[in-house]
Amino acid sequence: MSNIDAILEQIDANLPVSVERFMRFLAFPSISSQPEGKEGIVACAVWLRSELESLGFEARIVRTSGHPVVLGMSRSGSGSPGILLYGHYDVQPVEPLDAWTAPPFEPAFRDEDGLRRIYARGASDSKSQVWSFIEALRAWKDTEGAIPVDVTVLLEGEEETGSPSLPAFVDAYRDELACDVAYISDSDMWSPTRPAITTRLKGLLHEKITIVAPNNDLHSGQFGNVAVNPLRVLTKVLASIHDDHGRVTIDGFYDGVTPLPTELREQWAALPVDEALAGVSVSGGSDEGGYGTIESMWGRPGIDFNGIVGGNTGSGERSVLPSSASARLSFRLVGEQKPEYIRRIFRNFVKGRLPPGCRVEFEGSGGNAAVSVNEDSPYLMATARALDAEWPERTLIKGTGGTVPLVRLLTDRLGVDCIVTGFILADDAIHGPNEHYDVERLRKGTRSWARILSELRDEKRQSP
Amino acid sequence: MSNIDAILEQIDANLPVSVERFMRFLAFPSISSQPEGKEGIVACAVWLRSELESLGFEARIVRTSGHPVVLGMSRSGSGSPGILLYGHYDVQPVEPLDAWTAPPFEPAFRDEDGLRRIYARGASDSKSQVWSFIEALRAWKDTEGAIPVDVTVLLEGEEETGSPSLPAFVDAYRDELACDVAYISDSDMWSPTRPAITTRLKGLLHEKITIVAPNNDLHSGQFGNVAVNPLRVLTKVLASIHDDHGRVTIDGFYDGVTPLPTELREQWAALPVDEALAGVSVSGGSDEGGYGTIESMWGRPGIDFNGIVGGNTGSGERSVLPSSASARLSFRLVGEQKPEYIRRIFRNFVKGRLPPGCRVEFEGSGGNAAVSVNEDSPYLMATARALDAEWPERTLIKGTGGTVPLVRLLTDRLGVDCIVTGFILADDAIHGPNEHYDVERLRKGTRSWARILSELRDEKRQSP
Repeated sequence: MSNIDAILEQIDANLPVSVERFMRFLAFPSISSQPEGKEGIVACAVWLRSELESLGFEARIVRTSGHPVVLGMSRSGSGSPGILLYGHYDVQPVEPLDAWTAPPFEPAFRDEDGLRRIYARGASDSKSQVWSFIEALRAWKDTEGAIPVDVTVLLEGEEETGSPSLPAFVDAYRDELACDVAYISDSDMWSPTRPAITTRLKGLLHEKITIVAPNNDLHSGQFGNVAVNPLRVLTKVLASIHDDHGRVTIDGFYDGVTPLPTELREQWAALPVDEALAGVSVSGGSDEGGYGTIESMWGRPGIDFNGIVGGNTGSGERSVLPSSASARLSFRLVGEQKPEYIRRIFRNFVKGRLPPGCRVEFEGSGGNAAVSVNEDSPYLMATARALDAEWPERTLIKGTGGTVPLVRLLTDRLGVDCIVTGFILADDAIHGPNEHYDVERLRKGTRSWARILSELRDEKRQSP
Repeated sequence: MSNIDAILEQIDANLPVSVERFMRFLAFPSISSQPEGKEGIVACAVWLRSELESLGFEARIVRTSGHPVVLGMSRSGSGSPGILLYGHYDVQPVEPLDAWTAPPFEPAFRDEDGLRRIYARGASDSKSQVWSFIEALRAWKDTEGAIPVDVTVLLEGEEETGSPSLPAFVDAYRDELACDVAYISDSDMWSPTRPAITTRLKGLLHEKITIVAPNNDLHSGQFGNVAVNPLRVLTKVLASIHDDHGRVTIDGFYDGVTPLPTELREQWAALPVDEALAGVSVSGGSDEGGYGTIESMWGRPGIDFNGIVGGNTGSGERSVLPSSASARLSFRLVGEQKPEYIRRIFRNFVKGRLPPGCRVEFEGSGGNAAVSVNEDSPYLMATARALDAEWPERTLIKGTGGTVPLVRLLTDRLGVDCIVTGFILADDAIHGPNEHYDVERLRKGTRSWARILSELRDEKRQSP
C-alpha cells in the first residue's frame, strides 16, 4: 500500500529546485494593506495560477471587491468530494525598512544555529505554508502521475487585512469549495520538533461602551465635588467586571462553559509553560483560580479591556469633567457560550451600575461562538498520524486564545470540520522585520503534506 | 466725614463719558494667546498708561518675558503703604467668529431685558472690572483733588494664558507692590443684586499616573487570560480612590481639613442652590455625605479624574493588551491640607495596589495649598460695608471650587491678604461668543470701588 517512501525521496531530491521556486514566490511584494502592494498582489496571483496549472489543476483568478482569490481544482473524476487546502499569499507591510538586514523582497540565505534560513517578508507567514502543500502536490503528481484525492486550493490575497471579501467569495463558490475536510495551513507548530493541530478556537465579540453625563464638559474645580464624572463612572463599572482573582463577576457569564476532556486537560497541564509564553511575563496577571497557564490561555473564557479614552489626553493639564468617556472590551468565548446572550447580560450589567442622570451607549461588533473540532474525527486522526510519522515528537492537539474567523466561516458555510495545522514557529519574526523560515522546515513541511495526502487516500479507501 | 455722596454723583454725571472711554478700551484686540494679538496688547498697554497718567499716576509699561505689565502708582507722600488693585487687560480669542452677532472688537450697544448692554470681547472679562476701579479713582481725583489712599495699579497682559511672567514680575517689583491689602478684581458676583467677596480658594495639585506592564503590547486573545493588562490595573486603582459615596478612601487625605465657621456654613446652606449650579445637573454626582451642594463645591476637598487613555483609541477594533495606560488626576485642597503630603500618600496608595511585575510612573505638577482670607480682616469688613451700601442685597462671603494661583502668589510673596471681589455674572458669556456687560453694572461697580476707597480711608484714619 505504501508508495509514500518514493514520494518523500522525490521531495528530498527536488528540494534545491523547490527552494529556488520558493525564493521566486517570496520576491513578489504582495502587501495587501497598502495601495502600492496591489501590483505585487496581482503579479503573485498570476504566478500562483500558473504554478497550479503546472500541477494539472484547473486554476483561475477570481476577482473580489478587494484582492483576488486564486482558486485551483484537481478532480480525480470519481465525483467524490475531497479536501480543501487554504493558504494566503498576501503579506504584512515591511516598515520599519531600516530594521531589515536585507531588503524584504530580495530573499536571502543565512546559515545560523545549524539551519539554512531564508530571510524575506512572508518567508514564514504564510508563503512557506502555501509552498509546502503545493510542493507536496507536485511530488505526488511527479511520482505517481496523479494526486490521490480531489483537491481544491484556495489562496487568499487579503488575510492580513482581515479577509473582508472572503465571506462573499465562500458563498458565491460554495459548490467549488465543497469538500470532506478543510485544512487551514496558516498555523503554527508547538516547537521545532513537535507538530500541532489546533482544535479549540475561541469565540469573540466586541463591545464599545460610552458613558454619557447629563452635562457638557465642566470645570472640574468648580463642579468636581457635585456633578457626575463619566471617568469615575467608567472606572467603577470596568473595575467591577472582574473580582480580585480575575474571575468575571457578571452573573451567567460562565453559562455554557464545558469542561475540557480529561485527557486533553492532562496533556495541556504537562506542557512546558515557558514555551507557550514565548518570553511573555505572566507576573501580576490574572489567576482565575485552579486553572493552569495553558488551560487559561486555550480553554477558559475571559473579558479584556482593549482601550479606554476620555477627558484630557493631551500633554498639559486641563481641569475638565468630560461629558463622556468610553472603553472597548473584547470577550473570548469557549464551549457553548452564546455571544448574543453574553452581550445582553453584559449590557444589563453596565446599565445596572449607572448613577441616575447618566446614560450609556453601546456599539457591538463581532459575535462568533467558539469552534472546536471533534478530536475523534477520522480526518484529524489521519492528519495526526501523518505528522507523527514525520516529526520527532508526537502531534500536540492544542487550543488557541485567539480567534480565527475563517474557521468559523468554513465550518458554518461549508458544513465541514476544519483542521488547523502548519509549521510556523513563534520566533520566525512574522509581522516584524527580518522574518525568516528555514529550508529544513520547508522540507519537512512538504513531506508532512505528502504524508497527509497519503493518509487521506487510505482513509477514503476505508470509508464507504 | 462723608464726601462720598459728591463722588457718587460725579460718577453718575460722568457716566456717558466714562462709557465712551470704556468702548475705546474694548476696541483694542488684546488677545494674549495668539501672535496676531500682540499689536493690540501693546497698543492697549500704551493707552492704559496714558489713562493712569491722566489720573496723576506715575505709570510705566514693564516688559516681561511675555506680554507687558502696566504698573501705576499714586502716592500721597505720607510714605504709608496702601492698596494694590489688580486687573487684566488681555482677552480670550474670539473664535468662532461667525457666532458673534457683531464684530467682537467693534463694541455695540443693545437694549435687552431692561438693560443697556455692551457687546464685545472683554466687555465682562475683565476690561469692565479694570475700568470700574479706574473710573472710581478718577471720580475721587476730580471731586476731591486726590485719591484718598496710596494706590498701586497692576494691569496684567497674560492672565488668559495662565500668567506665566507674573511670578518673576512680582519678585522683581516687590517694593513697588508693597501694600496693606491687595484686591483681585477679576471676579464675580453671586447674582445681579448681590455682591460677593470670595474668601476661600482651594489648593490644587495634579498627578499623572502611568501603569507600565512587564511586557510590550500583546495580543489580548492570546495572552489576555494570563498576562497583566494595565487597563485593568488602572481601572482597579482609580475605582478604589472613592467609596460608593464619593468619599476619598486614601488614609490621611482628610488630615488638615478644618470645619467651616458655623456662621459661614449656615449662610451657605441657606443659599439658593440652583443659582450656584447655573444649569449644571448634579444628578448622579457624588454625595460625600452630609454636606450640602454649596459646601461641597466651595468647602470640601476632592480628587477628580480629568483624563484617561490607554490601548486602542482608534475607530476600529484591535485585540491589544497595551504595555501601559495612564490617567490624569487633580486634587482640590482646603483648610490646612498639605500638597506634598497629599502627593506622597496618593503615590503610596497607588504603589500599594500594583500587582507584581507592574510599575507606575508619576508626573506631578502644581502643588498649592488652599488660601483663605481671614473673614474678620478689617479691610474685608470695610469692603463688605462698601458693597452693602451700594447693592440691594447683603454681600455674600463665598468660596470657589476653583483655584486662583494669583491669590496664592500675592499672599505668599507680598505677605498680605487678598480680597477677591468683582462684578462678573455667570451669564455674561465670558470666553464665548457675544460676551457682554451692562452699563448699569459698570455704574454700580464704579460706585462700589469709590465706596471701597472711602471705607479704606476711614479704616486707615482709625488705625494707628
